[in-house]
Amino acid sequence: MHCIFCSIIKKEIKSEIIYEDNYTIAFLDIAPISSGHVLVIPKLHFTNLTETDPLMLAYVMQSAQKIAGAMAKALKLSGYNILINNGAVAGQIIDHFHLHIIPRRAKDGLEAWPQGEYQASEAGQIAKKIIASLPKS
Amino acid sequence: MHCIFCSIIKKEIKSEIIYEDNYTIAFLDIAPISSGHVLVIPKLHFTNLTETDPLMLAYVMQSAQKIAGAMAKALKLSGYNILINNGAVAGQIIDHFHLHIIPRRAKDGLEAWPQGEYQASEAGQIAKKIIASLPKS
Repeated sequence: MHCIFCSIIKKEIKSEIIYEDNYTIAFLDIAPISSGHVLVIPKLHFTNLTETDPLMLAYVMQSAQKIAGAMAKALKLSGYNILINNGAVAGQIIDHFHLHIIPRRAKDGLEAWPQGEYQASEAGQIAKKIIASLPKS
Repeated sequence: MHCIFCSIIKKEIKSEIIYEDNYTIAFLDIAPISSGHVLVIPKLHFTNLTETDPLMLAYVMQSAQKIAGAMAKALKLSGYNILINNGAVAGQIIDHFHLHIIPRRAKDGLEAWPQGEYQASEAGQIAKKIIASLPKS
């Protein structure tokens, strides 16, 4: 199946590449949430975070940390967000695992998602459900 | 300096702990963006992602991936977001590195940030700036 990110890795599609090593590549998002928005991806094709090999995920994070530091310095940022969308319902559009680094600036208009609260024993019940689904170690 | 997340790690403050190993701990956010919202943190205190030891970051991601899988199964989710806020301007409130896992459901009302586009040579200029600030390898 054709994957646009695999084509970027193979340099079949032009992109503004920021960083590349044996396992990862990073390039500017062509539809930036803010100026300087970067995508970091593993060179191996994994559909989403859930499916990504844990060692490759570690490499992606290592690259992301390096790039975010350089980005903050280069663009004189006081902050940034790292965002991973897993699944279409979470906003994932390309089915090749990718991590967004989104530069943040004062009064940039990007609003935080509103926070709620739990009723009585609700939190404890949810916690129990998640714990019961964790792999046994 | 007092750190509320260090107090959670030491169990001085009660929280709904989901997961714990030698290097990381995860618990429910008491002000959830959506029901089941989890925070994953390293046990060592680092102010933010930029300051986090790369190996500890890899452990945090390993735990996050495990927990997100369990959460998706337990709460029957079709997706989730991973979010890291680095710096106050990016929405970071507690100065102990933490990663959000935010469950997503159809029509949950959480809106994606709007995307823009670059003019002419703008992207190339930004890419050059970031590349120039990367550590020499």
